[in-house]
This record gives sequence, structure tokens and C-alpha cells, in this order.
Amino acid sequence: VTADPGLGPGREFDLVRAFLAGEGSAGPSVRVGPGDDCAVVTGDGIALSSDMAVEGVHFRRDWSSPEAIGYRAATAALSDLAAMAARPIGLLASLAVPEGDAGDFAERVMAGVRAAARDAGVALLGGDLVRSPGTLVLDVTVVGEAPRPVLRSGARPGDEVWVTGRLGGAAAVVAALARGDDPTERLREPFDRPVARVREALWLAERGIPAAMLDLSDGLVSDLGHLAAAGEVAIRADLDAVPVHPAAWEMADEEEARHLAAAGGEDYELCLVARPGAVAPVADAFGARFGIPITRVGRVVAGRGVAWLRGGTEIPHPEPTFRHFSGD
Amino acid sequence: VTADPGLGPGREFDLVRAFLAGEGSAGPSVRVGPGDDCAVVTGDGIALSSDMAVEGVHFRRDWSSPEAIGYRAATAALSDLAAMAARPIGLLASLAVPEGDAGDFAERVMAGVRAAARDAGVALLGGDLVRSPGTLVLDVTVVGEAPRPVLRSGARPGDEVWVTGRLGGAAAVVAALARGDDPTERLREPFDRPVARVREALWLAERGIPAAMLDLSDGLVSDLGHLAAAGEVAIRADLDAVPVHPAAWEMADEEEARHLAAAGGEDYELCLVARPGAVAPVADAFGARFGIPITRVGRVVAGRGVAWLRGGTEIPHPEPTFRHFSGD
Repeated sequence: VTADPGLGPGREFDLVRAFLAGEGSAGPSVRVGPGDDCAVVTGDGIALSSDMAVEGVHFRRDWSSPEAIGYRAATAALSDLAAMAARPIGLLASLAVPEGDAGDFAERVMAGVRAAARDAGVALLGGDLVRSPGTLVLDVTVVGEAPRPVLRSGARPGDEVWVTGRLGGAAAVVAALARGDDPTERLREPFDRPVARVREALWLAERGIPAAMLDLSDGLVSDLGHLAAAGEVAIRADLDAVPVHPAAWEMADEEEARHLAAAGGEDYELCLVARPGAVAPVADAFGARFGIPITRVGRVVAGRGVAWLRGGTEIPHPEPTFRHFSGD
Repeated sequence: VTADPGLGPGREFDLVRAFLAGEGSAGPSVRVGPGDDCAVVTGDGIALSSDMAVEGVHFRRDWSSPEAIGYRAATAALSDLAAMAARPIGLLASLAVPEGDAGDFAERVMAGVRAAARDAGVALLGGDLVRSPGTLVLDVTVVGEAPRPVLRSGARPGDEVWVTGRLGGAAAVVAALARGDDPTERLREPFDRPVARVREALWLAERGIPAAMLDLSDGLVSDLGHLAAAGEVAIRADLDAVPVHPAAWEMADEEEARHLAAAGGEDYELCLVARPGAVAPVADAFGARFGIPITRVGRVVAGRGVAWLRGGTEIPHPEPTFRHFSGD
């Protein structure tokens, strides 16, 4: 934690103290909690990832409550732990706050971060709070235990490609907001409170299922490209197999909904590669346990890159009409 | 690592790849390096700290080269590892970059971060690169191994308070720049390339010397307050005992130099509390090994808060004429 004399030490230290006053208590993996120069955690393989969110690029105040801004930023980072099948331990949140927002607004953003941490069962381990002459910037670093991390690189020809949950919900909300619509709170949920699939990832990994895995942050079209590149393989994906989020069905026509699901991004569902026949026997149990489906969307073949198919015929890579935040 | 579609995936991914192409190879504590969803490190007690630096608040482009901006931001974070007597393992660097700076400028900032990582003997483990509609923001999260972390809270009445190195150098440079002076490269060094005292901290901790420790980021006046509060003790400090950096002697008059040394901040030297007589026998060996002094500046007594003395008489808390970045 750095002092920023510009905010005034008294006020700033009060805020830092308020931010770090965790509601959830630190688990047994936290040897030193927030308040000292560092937090100290223990575990067999500590997984780490940082995710930065910038106002006007990753979020807009007229589209998201301060709590939703914090919740989504924390989920985006926690989702990287899920992608490695890591058990979350805690997170560090650094916040650059425009002068006028140092009070209530910043506290509400941090309340959203804390809510996401609590939903993942983890503690706030530290962070930083500084003044910003520009826009709000939030950087979340997540910390987890990953004794046997699942990498992106394990795909082999013959493997199957599966996704958890249903896709395109967040992108459908953003497309609606961009059109000037005002979606209901229920419809907005995939955008305001996306879930990091940490429990789902651990459940799958305990059963030795994922040979390779990542979380869907860029969108399936891009993220399959990452999986194919990391595994030095090709992936053939079926657009009609991609599970579409009900919010996308409701807010877009059928074609646009399918394209939002394939390319929209920020769903934070898992995309995993598994040996042939490994997932199908547990798919019902997965659905019953977590209330979301696990769906086969493609397969791994020899070669490089990703091919998208429809009715067996190759199609151009899906791209929704509306491209998330591009040009902002 | 998040994709920011706004930068254009191709260009951004190239930059991320360039950023994460470490020059130093990852040490044996790094099980998974950058490039996957998380890095994974191992060790007996993993210490973590984040430090955010914002353009116009913590640095100015007309005062610092891009490399110096990156070097100082990384040192500020690495210094928190030193403060816990942690052995650095690596760091994650998140960068929000104004549109026009996505090329050369951002790469030079990251070159500074990498240089500080290399000087501390560690690897770049990950991070994020996003577009900023505002100013440049850099958040560095450091990761180290601290089997026996030295906390801020170990001071007991009767203990001695010591500092490494000489103080006020960085503040003297900032004061000179604020006056419109153009200090030579040699004089600017404590500001451009401050050293995180990780080796010094490990050396002291191996000898069981620090009972409490922190790094001087806010300045001795504030940081002694943190040590006293954490230990629930009082500290009596002697202004004339504070070792003054030669750059402060050279750029300020004697009184201002002493005040810059006591209150200036961002020196990233260590301040430690030790049992009476514990440091003196190793002070010469410390000086010979590291080329910097270790100096007694005060003592711990019962009570609360910090008293500053001069010739045995209590004085107001030192404050330099120029206050670092305040009002920016």
C-alpha cells in the first residue's frame, strides 16, 4: 500500500482502512492479512493473475452501478483462477480514483469487489488506493492455490471442446445499452454480476477431465484461437452447438443471438478440452450440481487455427453486428 | 491477461507478447511462467503487495524518462517485499496506456519495469495491458517468498530504530525539478533508479536482527508513525541523526536537506526496529557488504505516537518547504 499525499494522508488512510476491512475472514491459507507491507499466503503452487479495468474502455458509469463495476472487475480476475482449476485464496485490488469520487463512489466500487470476493469465498489481501487525474482505473490481482494447474496447452487431435453455462448474455446487455435500451435488472444480471466458475472448474479438475482450459473473456471465437495456438492444434467449432444465454435470445434476433454467443466475450464461462467421451458421463451430474449445462461445441483436429462450421459447412468466423466497446 | 478489443487484438497481443518476453529467465520458484491464464509460483509463504502509480500524481513525463517511470514503480513494489524480508520471485505489471502511447512509450516504461525486476533477480510473471482514455497508470504486484515475514508490529520499549542508506535524495530531486532546475543524471539517480533493499533486508533477517521493519515510502516522519501504531509503542527520533543523502546536501541548504531526509519520502530505504545492541556489532560488516550505512535514528519507548527531538528537545514534526507532488 502506497500513500498518495495528494489525497491527504488522513482521508486516504481512512479509506484504505475501510477498503481493507474485510467482511469475510481470511482462510487458513492466509498467514498475514492486509495492513502490513505485504500479505503472506501459503499453498502448494500459488496461482496469480492481474486484470485491469478502465472507465470508458471496460466499463461506463451510465451503464453500470459502482457495485457492478467492482463486481465485474473482480470476476474477470477470479475467472483466471477458475481457468487454471485453482482454489481462490484472495485478491489485491488497486484503485485509481478521480478526485471527486474518493468518497462514496470508490467505496461502492470496492463493495462490489468485496461481494465478488465473498461469493468466491475469499479474502481481500491488500491493494492500493491512489488519486487519478483521469478516469477510474481498477486493477485486481487474484491469488489461488493450484497444485495441478490446468494449462491452455493440453489439447490433442481427437479431443472434444466443451463450454460451461450459456454464452452471449453480457454482450447482449451491452448491445442493448448501446442501442439506448434499458434492460431490466434480471436481463442485466450476466453483465452486472457475472460468475467466476471456480467451483465448476475444481469439480471438473477433481475428476481429471480438463486436458486444457481457459475462461471465456475475449469470446469463444478468440478464445478457441488461444486454445488452438497453445496446443498447436486446430479446432472445428459448430456455431449451432454454442449454447445461447436466455438474455441474448430475449434481446436479439436469433442470428444475432448466436453470433453474440460465439463472439461476444466477458461471459467468464469455462472452455475446456477433454479426451473423447470424458465429459458426457458426468454432464448430467454437472448440470444438477451447478444449475448450468456443459455443452460440446467442437473438436480438436490436427493442423492450426479454428474453423467454424454450420450444418457441416465452413462459415466465416462469427462476428456480432455490435462489437463490444470497440471505437470507444 | 485481458484482451482489450479497443487496441485491436493483433497489435495488443503483439505488445503483450513483447512485454512478457522476459530477459531474465524464471527462477526455480516459478512453476508456470507468463502466457497462460495465471502464473504459478511455489514457496514457503508467498508474500504479495500491489503498488499503483498514476501519471500526474506519482510521476510526470517532463520529469522522468519512460524507463525511470517503470523502474521507480517496480522498485516501489519490490521494496514492500524487502520490508517483509521476503525473497523476490517475480512481479505482475498492469499498464493502462493512452492511445497515442501504445507503441514505443509503453515499451520503454515496461523496459524500466523489466530492468528493476532484473536488478532484483526476478522474472516478469504476467500482467495486463489496456487502453486508457486518461493518463498512464501502472500497477505492479510483487511476489516473493517469506518463510518468516518481518512484520511492522514487533517493536518493544527499549528497542532501537535504524535506517539503511541515506535519505532525502528522491525528494531533493523532485524539489529541484519543481523549482525548474535540471539536475545532472548523477544527482537524479535516487529519483530515477531507487534501489529496493531486498538483499540488505535478507542479510539482516538471516541474522535475526529486525524485530519490526518497513520500507520508507511515505517518508520517515510518516513511516515511524506506522511502526509506532503497529507496535502500540512510542518512538523518539533525533532529526540530527537522520542520514542525509548527498544529493539532498548538494541541492538544498542544510536545514531543508535535513527536513527532506526526515519527511521527503520515496527513498525505499529500510527502517527497522531491533533489540538494544543487536545492530551495532554488524553495522561495519553491513556497510562493507552493501556500500551504504546503517544508522540509528531513534528509540522505542512506552506510549503512543512519534516525538521528534533535536539536541534532546522536542521539536515539531519535520516538514520540508516543498511537499512532494501535493496539490498536483
